Amino acid sequence: MFKKILIANRGEIAVRIIRACREMGIETVAVYSEADRNSLHVELADQAVCIGSARSQDSYLSLTNIISATVLTGAEAIHPGYGFLAENSKFAGMCKECRITFIGPDLETIEMMGNKSRARQTMMKAGVPVVPGSEGLVHDDEHAEAEADRIGYPVMLKASAGGGGKGIRIVWEKGDLQKAFATAKTEAMVNFGDDSMYLEKFIEKPRHIEFQILADHHGNVIHLGERDCSIQRRNQKVIEEAPSAALTADLRKRMGDAAVNAAKAVGYKNAGTIEFLLDVHGQFYFMEMNTRIQVEHPVTELITGVDLIREQIKIAAGKKLTLIQNNVKIKGHAIECRINAENPNLNFRPSPGKVNIMLWPGGKGVRVDSGIYNGYVIPPYYDSMIAKLIVHGEDRQDALSIMKRALDEFVLEGIDHNIEFLFEILSHDRFASGDFDTSFLSQEFNF
Amino acid sequence: MFKKILIANRGEIAVRIIRACREMGIETVAVYSEADRNSLHVELADQAVCIGSARSQDSYLSLTNIISATVLTGAEAIHPGYGFLAENSKFAGMCKECRITFIGPDLETIEMMGNKSRARQTMMKAGVPVVPGSEGLVHDDEHAEAEADRIGYPVMLKASAGGGGKGIRIVWEKGDLQKAFATAKTEAMVNFGDDSMYLEKFIEKPRHIEFQILADHHGNVIHLGERDCSIQRRNQKVIEEAPSAALTADLRKRMGDAAVNAAKAVGYKNAGTIEFLLDVHGQFYFMEMNTRIQVEHPVTELITGVDLIREQIKIAAGKKLTLIQNNVKIKGHAIECRINAENPNLNFRPSPGKVNIMLWPGGKGVRVDSGIYNGYVIPPYYDSMIAKLIVHGEDRQDALSIMKRALDEFVLEGIDHNIEFLFEILSHDRFASGDFDTSFLSQEFNF
Repeated sequence: MFKKILIANRGEIAVRIIRACREMGIETVAVYSEADRNSLHVELADQAVCIGSARSQDSYLSLTNIISATVLTGAEAIHPGYGFLAENSKFAGMCKECRITFIGPDLETIEMMGNKSRARQTMMKAGVPVVPGSEGLVHDDEHAEAEADRIGYPVMLKASAGGGGKGIRIVWEKGDLQKAFATAKTEAMVNFGDDSMYLEKFIEKPRHIEFQILADHHGNVIHLGERDCSIQRRNQKVIEEAPSAALTADLRKRMGDAAVNAAKAVGYKNAGTIEFLLDVHGQFYFMEMNTRIQVEHPVTELITGVDLIREQIKIAAGKKLTLIQNNVKIKGHAIECRINAENPNLNFRPSPGKVNIMLWPGGKGVRVDSGIYNGYVIPPYYDSMIAKLIVHGEDRQDALSIMKRALDEFVLEGIDHNIEFLFEILSHDRFASGDFDTSFLSQEFNF
Repeated sequence: MFKKILIANRGEIAVRIIRACREMGIETVAVYSEADRNSLHVELADQAVCIGSARSQDSYLSLTNIISATVLTGAEAIHPGYGFLAENSKFAGMCKECRITFIGPDLETIEMMGNKSRARQTMMKAGVPVVPGSEGLVHDDEHAEAEADRIGYPVMLKASAGGGGKGIRIVWEKGDLQKAFATAKTEAMVNFGDDSMYLEKFIEKPRHIEFQILADHHGNVIHLGERDCSIQRRNQKVIEEAPSAALTADLRKRMGDAAVNAAKAVGYKNAGTIEFLLDVHGQFYFMEMNTRIQVEHPVTELITGVDLIREQIKIAAGKKLTLIQNNVKIKGHAIECRINAENPNLNFRPSPGKVNIMLWPGGKGVRVDSGIYNGYVIPPYYDSMIAKLIVHGEDRQDALSIMKRALDEFVLEGIDHNIEFLFEILSHDRFASGDFDTSFLSQEFNF
């Protein structure tokens, strides 16, 4: 097992990884930007190295600074968390060259899955259902139009290098395609430095269902059930839960099998997530694979008891999975709310600043993952998510009751936040009934 | 089901009960002394009533003030928590007269179990093993000597009205008995207003093993496994865990059966705890029954998933238990640490005062039950326990790792506390090995 791991991230996920390392008796190295000098992850780690200025490009996205910090501190492995360099194949490659273990899949897998178009083709070959779409990239207007005609409207234009809901454009009718194609290409270039686009049938009212995968270096692949992440605002997940209210045992088995096949098809190693769209007829389609730990991983941890970060570390160290598929038992129901420093009444404008008064909810069934504390000043440079509130109940109704009382007792002052907004969603009849899809927030809350 | 419940307690247990009520959709009424005006339980309840001055006798122990508050607010039931009036049969009787549901067993059961000598006789009749001891009370020196000779030294003098480790005196040889008897009687009168004493064989190096019982009004009685509370300082529990490292499956079954029989023998209703001593030969002896929720109930909740406070409320409302014995499943291992405002280096002197900086540990497997917050001023009038840190791991070793990292990240400034002391206990080889008994702290730490 590793003696020392460097955590190439910040905020709650850095804290989460430090906790797992502590429990495993592994030393930790935190890295931080100048803006994060007073961060909790810096405080909790055994060692901390400043890797640059506030701007992510100069610190958390600086491959060389992070590699240098690793070499300097003698860490044997890097956990990238999510975001930043977690799905950067170049970074994974640099780690390999420097003989540092990258805690994640190998660079070829990251590269393949990062290229949405290649990922799609791979999945088709592996017999995993995919959304009807273009054969590979669409090169120009004409090509796009021909493919859209073949598939049928509405269609989605997707940036091949996109991810996390970014770089997507829906086209409802033929007349809008040309203009949308041009705009989408420009956006993709700006955001991802790559304007290759592909085209997919737009599945109306789908649920976002994703399966958690664990795969070791000895050919063992298991899934830990699904997460329902259909509550999204502009393709950003807001509330996640497991299991999904939309899945029967049979469908769960078929989707789980497909997810395991998908992982096997690419020789996947470590923790990963296969995202599916589930349509109203019970048909599911591979959407993408995330080759890293997800923000919403705790809901899976609560219903299975498995510590996913520890599993990632053990897999990276070459250990065999100790869990087999038949021993994965789902117990109860878990819900996660993402607590953001933002103002829902001002178009979710980020609200950095000082946390004056803060009190976590506690008690039975409540878990808080966060990097903030009383008096902490949230810097304006990074993601607005500042905490995750995750609850575990006997069933969905119970988890919902616990989440509502936990949100209700959550004290957070000094900054704007979305706690009341989350409470409103949870109190909505359609959410309570479990009858919703990814359009829920835009339909019911006009977001 | 009740519409409104009054919580006749303060601190973490009041908060705990409010949380359960919230989740069940039941309105809550908090009561508070003048010293507790800014308490969290007051803040979290739907209504709050001041019931008197700081001194417990004038507020939390004032039967009439609490009954008045109940009538005034229209609450249909009272949850007494632990301590204060939780095992006061007179209070349970007053509730009955006023047609208020006392959430606990009936007054006759409280009375019988509160009288340690009667409880012992009842258990003997029910075939539950008890520690060899006097037949009933010992009336005078001579009687005590005769009984001690019969049983064999060392013996324990116990106050019949005692409890929670108070009113106990160990006599190692005959020459010390007379003096000890006189002192113990005086102490018992001062502390409990009742100097009746009985005598028991002193079990050397016992473990304190208690079984959690649930019994409804329809004749159903189940147990939820044991808790090991052997880590005690002067008979006060410091760390509790479940399951016990000392029990085999067979012993667990026999002790569980005995606990269920004990509860049935007294027609017990609601949640209760049967405390046993387990000697080095695997013999167990009934010690006492606590007719209320225990401080350490969360360890049972974590390994069984059962919400004990909700169960208490449902039972009091006349509901049948939905759980049967065969469906009680123990999952993993839980440990609780009692966080006290006290100074271990100054003979555990209580340390009331202002909590300047506070940050709970969080993440996977961690639960915090507490009534304090940043800036809260801990009043000097009540118990020094200010928080409970409870963790849940795959097994004992895992739970221990989680507890150590959680204690390590616990921030609590402005007052003295026992967090480092708890960490030392957990780091001790004998604790880690599971090889300890109730003398552990006095032997290894000289307390």
